[in-house]
Amino acid sequence: MTEPASAVALDVMPSGIVDKPARGLVEALLAHGLLLKTSTSGVWGRSRGFERVIEAIERLISDETREDQASYVRFPPVIGRADFERSEFLKSFPHLAGVVHAFDGPPEKHQELLGRIESGADWSDLIRMTDVVLVPAACYPVYPLLAGELAQGGALYDVSSHCFRYEPSAQPTRMVSFRMREQVRAGTAVEVLAFRERWIERASKLFEKLAVPALSAAASDPFFGRGGRLLAVAQREQRLKFELVVPIISETEPTPVMSFNYHQDHFGRAFGIRTSDGATAHTACVGFGLERIALALFKTHGFISEEWPKEVRAKLWP
Amino acid sequence: MTEPASAVALDVMPSGIVDKPARGLVEALLAHGLLLKTSTSGVWGRSRGFERVIEAIERLISDETREDQASYVRFPPVIGRADFERSEFLKSFPHLAGVVHAFDGPPEKHQELLGRIESGADWSDLIRMTDVVLVPAACYPVYPLLAGELAQGGALYDVSSHCFRYEPSAQPTRMVSFRMREQVRAGTAVEVLAFRERWIERASKLFEKLAVPALSAAASDPFFGRGGRLLAVAQREQRLKFELVVPIISETEPTPVMSFNYHQDHFGRAFGIRTSDGATAHTACVGFGLERIALALFKTHGFISEEWPKEVRAKLWP
Repeated sequence: MTEPASAVALDVMPSGIVDKPARGLVEALLAHGLLLKTSTSGVWGRSRGFERVIEAIERLISDETREDQASYVRFPPVIGRADFERSEFLKSFPHLAGVVHAFDGPPEKHQELLGRIESGADWSDLIRMTDVVLVPAACYPVYPLLAGELAQGGALYDVSSHCFRYEPSAQPTRMVSFRMREQVRAGTAVEVLAFRERWIERASKLFEKLAVPALSAAASDPFFGRGGRLLAVAQREQRLKFELVVPIISETEPTPVMSFNYHQDHFGRAFGIRTSDGATAHTACVGFGLERIALALFKTHGFISEEWPKEVRAKLWP
Repeated sequence: MTEPASAVALDVMPSGIVDKPARGLVEALLAHGLLLKTSTSGVWGRSRGFERVIEAIERLISDETREDQASYVRFPPVIGRADFERSEFLKSFPHLAGVVHAFDGPPEKHQELLGRIESGADWSDLIRMTDVVLVPAACYPVYPLLAGELAQGGALYDVSSHCFRYEPSAQPTRMVSFRMREQVRAGTAVEVLAFRERWIERASKLFEKLAVPALSAAASDPFFGRGGRLLAVAQREQRLKFELVVPIISETEPTPVMSFNYHQDHFGRAFGIRTSDGATAHTACVGFGLERIALALFKTHGFISEEWPKEVRAKLWP
């Protein structure tokens, strides 16, 4: 199995879905006060009722994975730019990355900046690129942490954070800032593939318990540019990425709510992660799109969580 | 009471503290595995033991404020740039804002970008300012939401989010990305001042229950530029900002862990918020610096939360 030039697997597949707003869904979510519109596309406020479901999903994942004894670590929604550049995310997905800029000029430039804002002129040349970038997937801060030699048997991490991908959309299934819970595995190819296989099965059972109709399928990431299509085909052929999809805004184009990604030795090479035998480590990650899973539950069981089927409520709020 | 030109009160006072790393504190936090260093200044990973304390603080705030019946809403760590510009944050604190840039060029420019990264050259001119900015304080997304006429008695919101301020530091008391819980009040001047006064008292009692030595004092924000010092003096004289401070890295220069801010009609004017009488609304906010409160607890009671005084543990984990 060889790796395509830059097939870094993203963790929730964002593209390939028809991009017209699902009016019915959006209107129902707003009418029930579950989401709040802001003036900016892809940025949503969330009510108590919505967050209650997100919290329940996070707790359920914790309960289901407790026996795995993953290393628990939490990161803020930004990552150092040096680490981000090393990850080569920009090779495959330059259009999705959010790079933080800040002002560091003298008072005169500050006055100019304020004048430009006042007159509605562009002020972007007055600020400078910083050393931080928005995290594109919850697993990215883990790989720099693993640099060096892993213990025998490899490593397993549990992370969860706000992630950013710049693809503004009117659909609540595609927020520019959204939450992702992830399990990240590093070790030999055999170890990480076994981890991923086990998770594909496990995830299907989890959605069965939630009575949400989910299907798993081979998938590909939204690679940028002319070579993107070829990379996507290679990724699919090599079965590097699987997704669990649920009909949320369309029956024919279901939305990915989880992804199962095998990175081969991409991150191992980028960050110098080695197995206990000294070989370059392989990695895989399993990502839960938390807002998408909540939306799948609302879509499937209705917009009032207190009225969801008893078995589903018992699973989410034991 | 008149308002200084652009005295928008920040919610946790970041400056005025001596900026040398508190080696002892950092080393103890790392040795106990509570925080994890990353390659980037001001960006920290957090362990289960640290997050357990953050979760307990959040729950304690929820319990203590339940009777207030605040409107609960949660926002992502980004806000629309149009709303951000209207807030006039950039007038007072241009140096702290994080503005998100993204790539939207053709494949040729993408190749150029990758080449520049490869050779270590600056690639910032190849990406463009987007319509989103990192949230500088948890309350900022609330004001656009309040545009229009408030109900009689005004409004009270409860928010919590990751916030961003670009002031990289080796001190864990000054992260570039940190969490802030806030109570936000809008109404008449009398209503919002009563809210703030009540909170200053209430907060002191809360810290007493946690056996953390906290003092409240008039304070000022780190205004930018030549006029900044004058704005800070005016803000202090008009008692627009109070803080609760705790010795964390220094006995003589205690760290603000909460702030109590009266914005007069600044946000009311900026976002067209009116009271039920049709007057421009006043606003105030009370912010909890969650990481700083956790650090204050570790500093005061030791680095093993299981060994904290029984009364403190009973309060945090009832």
